[in-house]
Amino acid sequence: MSEVGIILGSDSDLPKVKKCFQILDEFKIGYEVIISSAHRTPEQTKQWVSGAKDRGIKVIIAVAGGAAHLPGVVASYTLLPVIGVPVETNLSGGMDSILSILQMPGGIPVAAMPAGSAGGMNSALFAVNILALNNETYYKKLLEYRENMKTGILKKNDLIAEKGLMQYIKELEK
Amino acid sequence: MSEVGIILGSDSDLPKVKKCFQILDEFKIGYEVIISSAHRTPEQTKQWVSGAKDRGIKVIIAVAGGAAHLPGVVASYTLLPVIGVPVETNLSGGMDSILSILQMPGGIPVAAMPAGSAGGMNSALFAVNILALNNETYYKKLLEYRENMKTGILKKNDLIAEKGLMQYIKELEK
Amino acid sequence: MSEVGIILGSDSDLPKVKKCFQILDEFKIGYEVIISSAHRTPEQTKQWVSGAKDRGIKVIIAVAGGAAHLPGVVASYTLLPVIGVPVETNLSGGMDSILSILQMPGGIPVAAMPAGSAGGMNSALFAVNILALNNETYYKKLLEYRENMKTGILKKNDLIAEKGLMQYIKELEK
Amino acid sequence: MSEVGIILGSDSDLPKVKKCFQILDEFKIGYEVIISSAHRTPEQTKQWVSGAKDRGIKVIIAVAGGAAHLPGVVASYTLLPVIGVPVETNLSGGMDSILSILQMPGGIPVAAMPAGSAGGMNSALFAVNILALNNETYYKKLLEYRENMKTGILKKNDLIAEKGLMQYIKELEK
Amino acid sequence: MSEVGIILGSDSDLPKVKKCFQILDEFKIGYEVIISSAHRTPEQTKQWVSGAKDRGIKVIIAVAGGAAHLPGVVASYTLLPVIGVPVETNLSGGMDSILSILQMPGGIPVAAMPAGSAGGMNSALFAVNILALNNETYYKKLLEYRENMKTGILKKNDLIAEKGLMQYIKELEK
Amino acid sequence: MSEVGIILGSDSDLPKVKKCFQILDEFKIGYEVIISSAHRTPEQTKQWVSGAKDRGIKVIIAVAGGAAHLPGVVASYTLLPVIGVPVETNLSGGMDSILSILQMPGGIPVAAMPAGSAGGMNSALFAVNILALNNETYYKKLLEYRENMKTGILKKNDLIAEKGLMQYIKELEK
Amino acid sequence: MSEVGIILGSDSDLPKVKKCFQILDEFKIGYEVIISSAHRTPEQTKQWVSGAKDRGIKVIIAVAGGAAHLPGVVASYTLLPVIGVPVETNLSGGMDSILSILQMPGGIPVAAMPAGSAGGMNSALFAVNILALNNETYYKKLLEYRENMKTGILKKNDLIAEKGLMQYIKELEK
Amino acid sequence: MSEVGIILGSDSDLPKVKKCFQILDEFKIGYEVIISSAHRTPEQTKQWVSGAKDRGIKVIIAVAGGAAHLPGVVASYTLLPVIGVPVETNLSGGMDSILSILQMPGGIPVAAMPAGSAGGMNSALFAVNILALNNETYYKKLLEYRENMKTGILKKNDLIAEKGLMQYIKELEK
Repeated sequence: MSEVGIILGSDSDLPKVKKCFQILDEFKIGYEVIISSAHRTPEQTKQWVSGAKDRGIKVIIAVAGGAAHLPGVVASYTLLPVIGVPVETNLSGGMDSILSILQMPGGIPVAAMPAGSAGGMNSALFAVNILALNNETYYKKLLEYRENMKTGILKKNDLIAEKGLMQYIKELEK
Repeated sequence: MSEVGIILGSDSDLPKVKKCFQILDEFKIGYEVIISSAHRTPEQTKQWVSGAKDRGIKVIIAVAGGAAHLPGVVASYTLLPVIGVPVETNLSGGMDSILSILQMPGGIPVAAMPAGSAGGMNSALFAVNILALNNETYYKKLLEYRENMKTGILKKNDLIAEKGLMQYIKELEK
Repeated sequence: MSEVGIILGSDSDLPKVKKCFQILDEFKIGYEVIISSAHRTPEQTKQWVSGAKDRGIKVIIAVAGGAAHLPGVVASYTLLPVIGVPVETNLSGGMDSILSILQMPGGIPVAAMPAGSAGGMNSALFAVNILALNNETYYKKLLEYRENMKTGILKKNDLIAEKGLMQYIKELEK
Repeated sequence: MSEVGIILGSDSDLPKVKKCFQILDEFKIGYEVIISSAHRTPEQTKQWVSGAKDRGIKVIIAVAGGAAHLPGVVASYTLLPVIGVPVETNLSGGMDSILSILQMPGGIPVAAMPAGSAGGMNSALFAVNILALNNETYYKKLLEYRENMKTGILKKNDLIAEKGLMQYIKELEK
Repeated sequence: MSEVGIILGSDSDLPKVKKCFQILDEFKIGYEVIISSAHRTPEQTKQWVSGAKDRGIKVIIAVAGGAAHLPGVVASYTLLPVIGVPVETNLSGGMDSILSILQMPGGIPVAAMPAGSAGGMNSALFAVNILALNNETYYKKLLEYRENMKTGILKKNDLIAEKGLMQYIKELEK
Repeated sequence: MSEVGIILGSDSDLPKVKKCFQILDEFKIGYEVIISSAHRTPEQTKQWVSGAKDRGIKVIIAVAGGAAHLPGVVASYTLLPVIGVPVETNLSGGMDSILSILQMPGGIPVAAMPAGSAGGMNSALFAVNILALNNETYYKKLLEYRENMKTGILKKNDLIAEKGLMQYIKELEK
Repeated sequence: MSEVGIILGSDSDLPKVKKCFQILDEFKIGYEVIISSAHRTPEQTKQWVSGAKDRGIKVIIAVAGGAAHLPGVVASYTLLPVIGVPVETNLSGGMDSILSILQMPGGIPVAAMPAGSAGGMNSALFAVNILALNNETYYKKLLEYRENMKTGILKKNDLIAEKGLMQYIKELEK
Repeated sequence: MSEVGIILGSDSDLPKVKKCFQILDEFKIGYEVIISSAHRTPEQTKQWVSGAKDRGIKVIIAVAGGAAHLPGVVASYTLLPVIGVPVETNLSGGMDSILSILQMPGGIPVAAMPAGSAGGMNSALFAVNILALNNETYYKKLLEYRENMKTGILKKNDLIAEKGLMQYIKELEK
């Protein structure tokens, strides 16, 4: 069963949030994915969102760029937590997406994530933060995940010490 | 009968677009006004927009600030021309409202007006530009309106000549 | 006969609004195209705009980048609806074009479209929104066009279901 | 017992998020408040955050302005969901606060809320969205809260009809 | 006879560039002032600009805010040097005015001044820089003007030394 | 003899303003070029600027990027007209260069040109605008130059008519 | 003897960095203050900066707004550490000052502080950070200063506990 | 022994500040490098920073991008001078990194450097500015370094004179 519902305004945004899917897979959390636009398929969007709770969905991730109304529109149809991911655009690297998702009016909250690939990644992790409140397994995996991030960084310092700084940089520049 | 429908996300935006109502009154064009939020009253918004054409509405003006999804949401429910007016905010004077209204995705057009009181004024005049395509009376009034703007500016030059520049400035500074 | 007049400040902007021409072709709406700068050929611009109504033009689309005065200058010579399309530039992805087109003074309205290729597309669709007010054929085609957009999105969901999400993403990334 | 922990970088931000407290009170949700800076009291911050889960806290709201590192620093010490509220500043109305809270690196999620008073309000409501996943009472109250927002807007339309548009605007302008 | 022509899009901008007039008066340089909009009175603007050279005008100062097309439109009708002064607006303090005046296309130069009251001041001084190329009297006055600025600053240091720093600040804060 | 002095903060900016040199060559106007930084070679900068008038220089063009203090520093050492050209950077396409050159304090004017290659081009043309005030030959060449720009645009319209719009676009896209 | 030299482009900036003087007084660190503009008094600026080291100055604080070239110009005349303080302006709250001070070219470093009153405060504290490297007394005072900041925040939490949150907020709002 | 400590939020930032290492090598100044994130390895960061003074470190350089909390977090654990280097990002070329590092609250200073490679370079030079206050050898090397920059620029002018301007540009364009 899916605990997370992911809705994207365009299928071209799928690769931009690939890490979102990978993290949910890694945590073995079921999720649904739908391509549905706030503007081009408003009925499909409403229907999918309105039924989400009954289908067992607990958190919704909405991904959009430009005017990026999708997360806000989703939030208008549900009381589940809605996480908004702004897609990078040519306008200052996504300032339009960011402001449209962030600046929601008082009363209808959306949780804005960073623009770009960090947004996809953090949307999944934030969903797990929420789900872990009532799921010890997820909580333990989160602890592990964070521990692994730490170890990864520590190992890089070992590697730099081993190879020498300038050699390490040279290899990165390749 | 109303030819123009005006929808605002919040009643607090009414004074900010007062010139919109005044111009439509001046042109003797009937209009409907509704307070309806994209997020807080999505069903009312949808219903009002979907029925607009059948009620005789030809142009819709949507006024919103911040995330400002209203004009885009309105446009998703109708094929009438939708004019969006961004309300000024604390964020760079309304950059959030501007980008959310302007940067609509390809396929669902919204006509963005300037932020602030010029936006209210121009939304009405642009609506008249559209209605005048099939209404000679409106067209003649538009010609007159523009002629009056010209005369107004010419008169100011006469006044400056009369009073002297520095005196004229002094009175403006009061 | 042409119902839409399209004016561009530079021929180098033609490819950027190609979708504008394609949509008007698709809707079988006649249009004129002229390259004419607000600053380098002001007389040609004035003449073309001033005569537009008499030539049967009903809507004008003006495309410009940078200082992007063209849409405003066009609007100063006509009472036809003027749609402005901001071309993307290096300055924050077109913030200069956007603000110059959007922030028109009260009295002379211009309908601003999104920057980039969505702008070209939506300028044509918005022109059709206006023309369809008095043309049932266009209105029906618009309904169809929007229906096709919906179907297109629904099909993508079928395709994702068929191929599997990760496979679908992999193909997009190619 | 407190289910929500609220941390502010400065006591001068308290009035700016007053609605946050009022909403939690309205929902009868217990909360803790602490003034603790990411930079001036890093140990107190760490200690308060690290112990939050054991004290029964389920969601943390972090409020900060300017460099606004607090929400990110809080998120580095906990796996509870962290909600960041950017305080408005003189820099473009809070662009510094917004970007510092929003643009978190992949791996450490923070849920960014709008700048200004909507941020305080939505941070509380988003916390309730999360808590309501496992609390039917909260969920029902959320439904009611949203219903009340709707009714409030509908009533405004009645009032406008009753008073007349221009009279209503006149009263708002007072 | 007037050597400088000053054109403003709106009489409400007159007080904002008062220093422009004062400096020209101080240098005893004759100037013409006209209120004329690029959009509302395009013919008057064209006529005034086109005849400027024959009336003896050598430099044109154009003042405008928002879309601020006036300086560019003026430059399209003349080969005299055109100085553009962006008026401050609510949008980031005049970013719209600045970009519309600055980002002129290659071929039609406009000399952009700072936004705000420094812009009015510097437009006059820059005009004198140009006129002084062929007028020794103006050049000597410019030397004197700059010398006076220096002396003014030096005197402030004397005054601070005399009063004491904290006393001096206290008086400024009044 | 050189009538125009061109100073660049870095030799890497030379190709970015190539059109500046080409236009001055086309107008047969003599010019000096120096690489000299406001910060790295302040003495050389001061010396070159201070002596410019005596060497017969009438207009100075200063090109710089980033903090871009060069045009302002140049203006502090001379009463000749100083034209500033902002070089494009990674920061919003040159917003740092633009603001550093544009926002000069009252008293020391600098004429700001557009960012990028249009800036190089317009700096030369604006210098000619100034020089032409006292040189009929330059004035006639300017008239011709502008006439050629017009003819160039008119020819493009002929070419589009000849080739057909879509064929013309296809060739541009190559 | 003065260990810190403070240079401001305008005496009107003195009140904006009052905390700078107060902190240096509190630490009993001698300082010189001079009003001297990069553009209006370039010779005085150069002379004051060039002689600073010989007068015993170890750190220079330069305060400026708008084009804000002063810190960079100061840095071009000395090898002492230069701290730049951007004064807030109308342009996005000081974005011009910030970028002009921050974006120095490689080779001539300036240490940029935050805009506004925090900038004045931190410029003094950063100067003390530097001086404390060789002065145990200053280092101890810095430890104390930071300890006091902590205590101040802890006390506020006591006060909130004592008064009650809503009462505390009410008093702040006065 | 290391006098400078360099901390980077991610090893991928190493190549971006390569010039920092090269300059310190050139000045024969010892330095430590550590990869440590403000958020992913907060304990390691705290430990490394807290012990820096005892290890003989005198200046800390902290490099980070996006939310870029690292320099501020470092400054909260030490009284050594902390230099922050903002890494360029897709968001307006690093506006997020810049504001997060620059806009520190009063009380905890961080010295912000320019974004991009100039930032790496200037962070090293600014560290030397500080160290040179008590090290005559470093001071002499700084004098030499600056002299070499001057000579480098003077030589470029010779080279341009030798090759001819257009030939020099042609070679740069290669």
